[in-house]
Amino acid sequence: MATGKINVSVENIFPLIKKFLYSDHEIFLRELISNATDATLKLKHLTTIGEAKVEYGNPLIEVKIDKEGKKIHIIDQGVGMTEEEVQKYINEIAFSGAEEFLDKYKDSAKDSGIIGHFGLGFYSAFMVAAKVEIITKSYKDEPAAHWTCDGSPNFTLKKAKKTTRGTEIILHIAEDSTEFLEEGKIGTLLRKYNKFMPIPIKFGTTTETLPKPEGAKEEDPAPTKEVDNIINNPNPAWTKQPTELKDEDYKGFYRELYPMQFEEPLFHIHLNVDYPFNLTGILYFPKLTNDLNTQKDRIQLYQNQVFVTDNVEGIVPEFLTMLRGVIDSPDIPLNVSRSYLQADGAVKKISTYITRKVADKLSSLFKNSREDFEAKWNDIKIVIEYGMLSEDKFFEKADKFALYPTVDGAYYTFEELQEKLKPNQTDKDDKLVILYASNKEEQHSYIEAAKAKGFEVLLLDSPIVSHLMQKLETSKEKISFARVDADHLDNLIKKEDTQISKLSDEEKEALKTDIETAINNKSYTIQLEAMDSSSSPFIITEPEFMRRMKEMQQTGGGGMFGMGNMPEMYNLVVNTNHELVSEILNTKTAKKKERLINQSLDLARLSKGLLKGEELTKFIKRSYEMVK
Amino acid sequence: MATGKINVSVENIFPLIKKFLYSDHEIFLRELISNATDATLKLKHLTTIGEAKVEYGNPLIEVKIDKEGKKIHIIDQGVGMTEEEVQKYINEIAFSGAEEFLDKYKDSAKDSGIIGHFGLGFYSAFMVAAKVEIITKSYKDEPAAHWTCDGSPNFTLKKAKKTTRGTEIILHIAEDSTEFLEEGKIGTLLRKYNKFMPIPIKFGTTTETLPKPEGAKEEDPAPTKEVDNIINNPNPAWTKQPTELKDEDYKGFYRELYPMQFEEPLFHIHLNVDYPFNLTGILYFPKLTNDLNTQKDRIQLYQNQVFVTDNVEGIVPEFLTMLRGVIDSPDIPLNVSRSYLQADGAVKKISTYITRKVADKLSSLFKNSREDFEAKWNDIKIVIEYGMLSEDKFFEKADKFALYPTVDGAYYTFEELQEKLKPNQTDKDDKLVILYASNKEEQHSYIEAAKAKGFEVLLLDSPIVSHLMQKLETSKEKISFARVDADHLDNLIKKEDTQISKLSDEEKEALKTDIETAINNKSYTIQLEAMDSSSSPFIITEPEFMRRMKEMQQTGGGGMFGMGNMPEMYNLVVNTNHELVSEILNTKTAKKKERLINQSLDLARLSKGLLKGEELTKFIKRSYEMVK
Repeated sequence: MATGKINVSVENIFPLIKKFLYSDHEIFLRELISNATDATLKLKHLTTIGEAKVEYGNPLIEVKIDKEGKKIHIIDQGVGMTEEEVQKYINEIAFSGAEEFLDKYKDSAKDSGIIGHFGLGFYSAFMVAAKVEIITKSYKDEPAAHWTCDGSPNFTLKKAKKTTRGTEIILHIAEDSTEFLEEGKIGTLLRKYNKFMPIPIKFGTTTETLPKPEGAKEEDPAPTKEVDNIINNPNPAWTKQPTELKDEDYKGFYRELYPMQFEEPLFHIHLNVDYPFNLTGILYFPKLTNDLNTQKDRIQLYQNQVFVTDNVEGIVPEFLTMLRGVIDSPDIPLNVSRSYLQADGAVKKISTYITRKVADKLSSLFKNSREDFEAKWNDIKIVIEYGMLSEDKFFEKADKFALYPTVDGAYYTFEELQEKLKPNQTDKDDKLVILYASNKEEQHSYIEAAKAKGFEVLLLDSPIVSHLMQKLETSKEKISFARVDADHLDNLIKKEDTQISKLSDEEKEALKTDIETAINNKSYTIQLEAMDSSSSPFIITEPEFMRRMKEMQQTGGGGMFGMGNMPEMYNLVVNTNHELVSEILNTKTAKKKERLINQSLDLARLSKGLLKGEELTKFIKRSYEMVK
Repeated sequence: MATGKINVSVENIFPLIKKFLYSDHEIFLRELISNATDATLKLKHLTTIGEAKVEYGNPLIEVKIDKEGKKIHIIDQGVGMTEEEVQKYINEIAFSGAEEFLDKYKDSAKDSGIIGHFGLGFYSAFMVAAKVEIITKSYKDEPAAHWTCDGSPNFTLKKAKKTTRGTEIILHIAEDSTEFLEEGKIGTLLRKYNKFMPIPIKFGTTTETLPKPEGAKEEDPAPTKEVDNIINNPNPAWTKQPTELKDEDYKGFYRELYPMQFEEPLFHIHLNVDYPFNLTGILYFPKLTNDLNTQKDRIQLYQNQVFVTDNVEGIVPEFLTMLRGVIDSPDIPLNVSRSYLQADGAVKKISTYITRKVADKLSSLFKNSREDFEAKWNDIKIVIEYGMLSEDKFFEKADKFALYPTVDGAYYTFEELQEKLKPNQTDKDDKLVILYASNKEEQHSYIEAAKAKGFEVLLLDSPIVSHLMQKLETSKEKISFARVDADHLDNLIKKEDTQISKLSDEEKEALKTDIETAINNKSYTIQLEAMDSSSSPFIITEPEFMRRMKEMQQTGGGGMFGMGNMPEMYNLVVNTNHELVSEILNTKTAKKKERLINQSLDLARLSKGLLKGEELTKFIKRSYEMVK
């Protein structure tokens, strides 16, 4: 039996790094600026604790493009490295420290944002550079070092003349990566990844106009001055304490995040927790439309102020992906699959925390400024309803502040709604019937009829509300929802007392036959009802159950299989107590009877939005004749 | 000056592989089965060329779960390895061969699908296994070898007793990966990644019922037999030549790919090219609805029959991502970013090739079975229109077969349409005016009016058609599109001859004042026109330009900034030659005049779908009164 050690051959390791480690070459800039930031923050820490006896000052990180020389320079004023440190941190690729590298940001959080050495990230430079130089001078009193490597993996290391503290990385850009010599490209990358990094990053200069000196003539040009062009905001709002920030600051930060967004956010939620995980951030509720899909994925994920991604799927609960803003946490694993993310304990806790904070914020808004909350309801309801459907814990909290608006603009919580409706809308089986409309315009005549009977009508128009009603009906006791056009009102809310019909049973039978003969359409079921004589003579209704199942199918999930494709079925409710209906019954000429029935049916269909196309054109033509 | 070599420390390299190399742990199974497949195909090759003097037979790959022992076995009957080969291929991690590894599938294609040795992929086993064993016997007459490694990276290598040819990999599943001991999980992974791999894969057995022997009694149980459960189809349709396949085979393969899909595809396109890149595949045109977003991402990408992803963004042109099917190409780089993909020369060529093949297929369908093509047009138009908008080369080809249906179900190409319309729809400035409707029902009365004048009306109802019209208007000469309700017909297609108005200028002035006073609504611009006396008295029109810009804004891109939010503006066209209009003018009582105007306006609005809500309810009430 033989034993041994698996041997790793390192010749030509750079192609591996280049091709395999990072799928996105542009990452090199983020990695190198992260290193420069770490080196600067480390110096700050060392001067604070008195270990480095130098002036910290106002250090910058500078990015310079030398297009002609095909070079990019990244220069920091941080701790720098001695020759010995270069030997240790650069020449030994710490594969053994891979785990450590992966935990880099985690450690950095624990050590107040300071990493002591270069990580594997440095080598990402070889993804775009044929040759890399490091010229570095430590804050310690030692000579500067100059390291050069063409990725072969041979390097040279010699003394350098650099006298100022810090590290300069020089990338000799490879032939296949010359796009990174474009100022526009680098500027875009800096703004994407480094917009909120904690050390100011200088990229070129801009010209500033100064005030003219006193006594200058009109025609004298104003003096100008070259100033550093700083591309980042080192102190973004989310890194501050909520007490330091005014409402205006939050709105300002929103504009910083979404410069192309003209509408202001409705409100914000400041996230700030450091145990059992570290998370800061600000979430904004934007105005939302009813289209669930187009507005997702606007939340940006950072790790210690470095941009990571704008895909927070799996980290933020799905119903909150419609929000906007920033989440910054070193505890979220990167480069892992979605299924892994969902199983990760820390991520689960983060997701739960965010859900709770959102619910608490909504709850306090509701309690402290109900009027404002009501005014915003239509813009936020979709998130809340979606959350109630998908997260039971959220449902419990939201059940106390979710609002049910009426068609007349009153807003009730579910509890208030129950109180309000109890006297008038409890049926003979002691069940509370909640009437609603999904569209004020389309269901206008039905809403009016319900209001005439003193009923309240809710306006529930979000695309997922049928799922929510289904959930409410099963989780609450003795309540049911019915759309105003689901049946005629005396059937929707059945009371003990029954209306007396003007017609005898024989007359009813005759009427039914007349109508069936005249309309001859299988999709209408004739239903004779004794109603108020002031109610409409003909009404078309659409049973609640079937319609709701179809809607649920259409918005995905729920409902019953195959229901989405069922044909629409309607009832034609005929008011036997209406004058016109008596007239129909008593008309002797078949032709006139048929005309009366069909004109009434057309009007009922018009009321329900069912008269269309050729039938509508014919109806209009007939009506023009009648106008004359 | 010092020089040296960058040193890579290998201690504990496995955590790196585990955490970094693959984001998805489940990949291990795909990698190990790919290795088993390669080993089997290599044996086939060697026997074919006479280098291996053994019986190839009908080799299987077997996957077994030993749940109690916490092990997974993957057993092949391929070439196997001698002890020396294990030493060479397993104990030396060929980082130096990283490029080679990345090009693995590429090489394999060139060498007719055969890889000689294990790639880095083998080490992915350590993502889920605490310990890995290899028991392997070469096809050569040498003893079997047994290699064991716990990932430390120490290994042991000894002789084994295995007498059958091939390799068995035993994974001792780690504590954090026990999910992979579930039969359901492994079955799902096999069906996901290996459904079409070229060597049969056995996973468990199933019981097959045999016919009863003659003379068996009624109550005797039928005999049964255990048979291998093969989870893959080693010869999927796309690996065959089009000449070998019948239409039924293509449909059958579609059902194999999408077992939950009940609708049959409309037609297929068989892709088959080996120079300058290697690509096979079958694309299907499914029935498409007008919703552009929900139906994307159903094309599966394979590399040599191994499933890679169902995200083909960047590989297939965007307008074709609505298709379904399979693409198999070893030439598509994996693990790279989308921007990299789009810049890659080979990928660009593939994308161009696919576009061309689709265009050619459509063109031949159009030429060879026009009737069938017309019947399918509504289900495929969205892809074609989208393609015409986004790819100029596709536009050129599609311009010859793209169809323009009329409301009466005739289908014209653009050229045929021009011929057909020229005599009757060329206006006085020699411009061809193409009338269209977007909805047969909603625009019924307008369509009827246009047809009454002998005009053809197209039915253009896809959501992006306004963009296409815009493109056609700028790329063709002297044509313009106008929706039938954009103005009254004599204005849409202006001819030399003008209708004579029954009314004098003074009467017109008086009429205009009457109408303006009665309707008192700023959103209607009154436009008096001398039309046929048989045309409607009042017509509401909506100017083409504004409406189209709004629509283009709503479907994204194009149009003019901010147009999407402009209020709707309408014209009220009054037919001065209509009897009812004369009556309005001559009515003396203001009240009656107002009633006539408003009833006519209501009917015109009804015709355009603008009478809603309270106004509709009132209109219906008034109309019931008139019925009696």
